[in-house]
Amino acid sequence: MEEVPGAMGTSASLALRLGQAIFSTASLLFMCLGIDFYSYTAFSYLVTVMGFVIPWSITLVLVDVYSVFVKCLPHQPRILSAIIIGDLVLSLLSLAAASSTASVTDLLLDVGTPYCRANFCSRYQLSAVMAFLSWFLSFASSLFNLWRLPSL
Amino acid sequence: MEEVPGAMGTSASLALRLGQAIFSTASLLFMCLGIDFYSYTAFSYLVTVMGFVIPWSITLVLVDVYSVFVKCLPHQPRILSAIIIGDLVLSLLSLAAASSTASVTDLLLDVGTPYCRANFCSRYQLSAVMAFLSWFLSFASSLFNLWRLPSL
Repeated sequence: MEEVPGAMGTSASLALRLGQAIFSTASLLFMCLGIDFYSYTAFSYLVTVMGFVIPWSITLVLVDVYSVFVKCLPHQPRILSAIIIGDLVLSLLSLAAASSTASVTDLLLDVGTPYCRANFCSRYQLSAVMAFLSWFLSFASSLFNLWRLPSL
Repeated sequence: MEEVPGAMGTSASLALRLGQAIFSTASLLFMCLGIDFYSYTAFSYLVTVMGFVIPWSITLVLVDVYSVFVKCLPHQPRILSAIIIGDLVLSLLSLAAASSTASVTDLLLDVGTPYCRANFCSRYQLSAVMAFLSWFLSFASSLFNLWRLPSL
């Protein structure tokens, strides 16, 4: 049984999942802390999506930690398929949320001061960047697992 | 050699490609005709992406028409891989463009009259919907071809 680096149960996968958990949490925190994000649809959407991505990636971090450091778990095609579909759906939602946030932030920056007081816009930008990074890592995980699937 | 419905050279694929070509052209026309779309980054981005999607999908419509009605072309794994990667990249770009456009339009609708004169905002909305449909069909094509790839 060949081992694909980045597929479930490898240390590369653990690194990808840790990255997803860190970036999605950072994106949520940059957007939430002290900002009335619910006045903008795009920002509420980002917060909702990150609320799904964070528990998903933390669960998979725990599975990977167990698999790497304690005991290699057996791979079952059905479970791996479910993980691939979950990753794919969440990565598409993250991409949509990140690009919505980025474009709305760009528009607010154009309008200027009344909507961007106290460096709020740079926080929106940071949040969008973190969401893009989280999307990229989820998508990479999904592709690596998809590559692994036929050999099971 | 099994035939996957929706993979290159089938009539389902031709229908998907036709849908992509129609929806992406509609999205471009709703956005461009008589509107200063270049004052907004998100709208310029949508127009740029649709400028790539339209020739791509029209080329593949022609290939599929030839393959369905004239002579079944042989499938080569390399060409199919290139088509899958192209579809995947363009579908991700379309999704990002569609969600950016949708969120900016939502913000403009909130602000109201000065930015939404002469039903411009409903045209932006229609353009975003068409871009979402084009994304969905590109992504479906990409997945069907990916499913077909291992059997080559």
